[in-house]
Amino acid sequence: MAPLLLTTIAAPDRDLPTPLAVQLYRSLLDAIRTGRATGSLPSSRKTAIALGLSRNTVNAAYDLLRAEGAVDIRHGAAPRVLPPKVSDSAALPSAGARGGLSARGEGWARDGIRRSAGGIMAPGHPDETLFPRDEWAMHLRRAGRRRQGAGFAYADYSGIPALRSVLARRLTIDRGMQVEPDQILVTPGSQASLSLLALALAEAGDMALIEEPGYPGARNAFRGAGLRLCPLPVDAEGADLSGAPPARLVYLTPANQYPMGHRLSLRRRGQVLDYLNGTGALLVEDDYDSEFHWQGREIAALQGDAPDQVIALGTAAKALMPALRIGWIVAPRHIAGPLRAAQRNLGLGVNIHAQAALAEFMDSGRYRAHLRRIARIYGERGRALAAALRAIPGLDLPDPSGGVQLGCRLPGGEAGIVRALRDAGYGTAALSDYCIGPPQEGLITGFAEATAERIDRFTNVLRAALASFAG
Amino acid sequence: MAPLLLTTIAAPDRDLPTPLAVQLYRSLLDAIRTGRATGSLPSSRKTAIALGLSRNTVNAAYDLLRAEGAVDIRHGAAPRVLPPKVSDSAALPSAGARGGLSARGEGWARDGIRRSAGGIMAPGHPDETLFPRDEWAMHLRRAGRRRQGAGFAYADYSGIPALRSVLARRLTIDRGMQVEPDQILVTPGSQASLSLLALALAEAGDMALIEEPGYPGARNAFRGAGLRLCPLPVDAEGADLSGAPPARLVYLTPANQYPMGHRLSLRRRGQVLDYLNGTGALLVEDDYDSEFHWQGREIAALQGDAPDQVIALGTAAKALMPALRIGWIVAPRHIAGPLRAAQRNLGLGVNIHAQAALAEFMDSGRYRAHLRRIARIYGERGRALAAALRAIPGLDLPDPSGGVQLGCRLPGGEAGIVRALRDAGYGTAALSDYCIGPPQEGLITGFAEATAERIDRFTNVLRAALASFAG
Repeated sequence: MAPLLLTTIAAPDRDLPTPLAVQLYRSLLDAIRTGRATGSLPSSRKTAIALGLSRNTVNAAYDLLRAEGAVDIRHGAAPRVLPPKVSDSAALPSAGARGGLSARGEGWARDGIRRSAGGIMAPGHPDETLFPRDEWAMHLRRAGRRRQGAGFAYADYSGIPALRSVLARRLTIDRGMQVEPDQILVTPGSQASLSLLALALAEAGDMALIEEPGYPGARNAFRGAGLRLCPLPVDAEGADLSGAPPARLVYLTPANQYPMGHRLSLRRRGQVLDYLNGTGALLVEDDYDSEFHWQGREIAALQGDAPDQVIALGTAAKALMPALRIGWIVAPRHIAGPLRAAQRNLGLGVNIHAQAALAEFMDSGRYRAHLRRIARIYGERGRALAAALRAIPGLDLPDPSGGVQLGCRLPGGEAGIVRALRDAGYGTAALSDYCIGPPQEGLITGFAEATAERIDRFTNVLRAALASFAG
Repeated sequence: MAPLLLTTIAAPDRDLPTPLAVQLYRSLLDAIRTGRATGSLPSSRKTAIALGLSRNTVNAAYDLLRAEGAVDIRHGAAPRVLPPKVSDSAALPSAGARGGLSARGEGWARDGIRRSAGGIMAPGHPDETLFPRDEWAMHLRRAGRRRQGAGFAYADYSGIPALRSVLARRLTIDRGMQVEPDQILVTPGSQASLSLLALALAEAGDMALIEEPGYPGARNAFRGAGLRLCPLPVDAEGADLSGAPPARLVYLTPANQYPMGHRLSLRRRGQVLDYLNGTGALLVEDDYDSEFHWQGREIAALQGDAPDQVIALGTAAKALMPALRIGWIVAPRHIAGPLRAAQRNLGLGVNIHAQAALAEFMDSGRYRAHLRRIARIYGERGRALAAALRAIPGLDLPDPSGGVQLGCRLPGGEAGIVRALRDAGYGTAALSDYCIGPPQEGLITGFAEATAERIDRFTNVLRAALASFAG
């Protein structure tokens, strides 16, 4: 294949406001997408010389290309161009632009594309390089070779028995839940769990309480299902339900508030249980990072205190990989059966081999070893990023206590600062996007991929952006 | 492990109306579920002698246990008891029995459990023994070991580029569709496709036309989404739209009417296109068995004639395995983008390794060889079952021209006959369950698993049941 002629790409322009690395990244991506670059890219040294750039700049651009999935970079080898991809955020008309969807459908579509945007250090993204690929491939292969029996067709639509059993055991022991395997529904992930619950447990027009700022996935699913949303203020003790109106559903992230990272205090846990008791509402307890938590999590899930009124959600997205598309619902006993029937008609099924691989892996000692390893690494990266941000005048935030993202409030200038970070390839999100009421300004950044080099570059871009935009 | 003591199980009673094989099957299943039978079951010879039964009866019972997933039977070895399963149709309360779900949720739950019932020769079930396990396991392993890049998280939520490309190519060539990869949405199967379309393209209260008899999955999804359903009569030319009221959605299975097996005639194709033209309705063309069709299918998909008004559905369930949970939507260009956003918020994602394995397998010559093989076998089995049924006085039906099930009308006694077949372990369904208007009586039976021995047993049970119930 013909190597890329560096003379055919636009040299980055120092007079433009866009960082040189981003300009180079865009030129190279364009060359790849139009088929001018195939095979391998020149080494960063060659490119740096040819275009009069520093090698750091070129490496940053290559890192962005890798995050985009446009090239594969292996140690010591030149970046290899990967086959072109059809992007989810490609130039298709956005929701509502040309009709076609019903008003209800536009409710379901709202903000759906934006959430797939990606970028380095995007909120909630784990680090792919820590995914145990060989081990997973081995389990997949074994699962693929096995006869599946009744599970081959539609019998185990809400999850194969082996996975439901191991999940019930782990959630009982690790999270203090009261759960039998037949209360578990395996779903294609938390987003599917949320839309199933919103559609099956509430009517359009029913009230739901959600944290403010809170998880956009819950907001989008509840909004799609036509619920009215009432924001609950969040402070260092987590969500505050005092004065909350009666509601059908309450959505909380008690173990690690998403995205701000607080843990629900004991006092507030009592408040939540009193509220459930008084109103008969159902609590959706999103235990999204329960599969790994890297500080002592001595407090059990709320589900264990009120198993008839709490529906707990979990996911394999953080401990393993979002693209596995495996999550689970722990449903109260009297709801599990009907919910399973609704799951069947909504079509929320999960690939059987992925389920079997997860069940087998979770049942092995190596799963715990994997969790310990990523918990250590994410802990270090999260604390390093928080420390680097605290070193910037005007920013203040605590060390994260779990999860794979942290939130940091800004004194102002959110839109420009987020744009600058995104232009530089970061998946950083605006805190205002996590609000349904008056927007709060801030940044939400993932830290699972936050290596020392990336933190350096990130804080450099951020410092410059703060100087330009934060007044 | 202790072998099963045959003296501990109830001996089948010839005076009961239930077939001896079914009685034995139930006793053994009970012994397995309560833990009295572990390890291996006695050979059919030993069991036959101990209980005074014929070996055929014992083998039939063992075959039922295998279909249930309770035992594994290998050539020449005694049946091995498999670990107990949590059944989807377990003794949980059914929808609405104790509340918990909203009225909308009960709409979604309706008939959801019944559809997972299973049994041998259930409608729409392929034969697991024909699934290319080793090949699939190899592709899965390769996919598992690969770096996924941007697809690792949420970027390719509507399907990985490799799969969308190969699907677009195949659907263009094999089915005459007008489709680019970015019009394809990969979903967790046809049921997910149907609920996405119903929620995103129509409002509650909108009218949808569906075939009568027709596919229960479409009925359940549309009903869940609150659509009003209008039945279209089906005859030997397929569905008849003459006099149909204006509607938002029309659901048809033109290539092979589900469940009766007719192909939409050329005249009726014209009628459908005129209707779309006149009303602006959207057609959902369920091309569910397009991945393999075992008679010349010279007529292309309707999608190719009206790509802006037709949404085509496909699935890997028939050619490979339902539990892969992979289907796809071919959306009109102006709808694809917003539909993708709605898919994201509904959480209808598919495991990435299964997608990659399918893309790689479809792209290999061995996929065509697999399709040719199953088409030949299913063709033989379908014709053999149809011939065996025609040999029964009072039953008449044509040879099936595709699919993995056939429909046969009954002169009466449907309920009793279906019960007798289900008691004997068959997944045969009542035609009346496929109707929304006045019930039509008949049987819907899968033939993918219809070996000669099973056809014999099936027709014996059916003859006896017809004598008892068909007046």
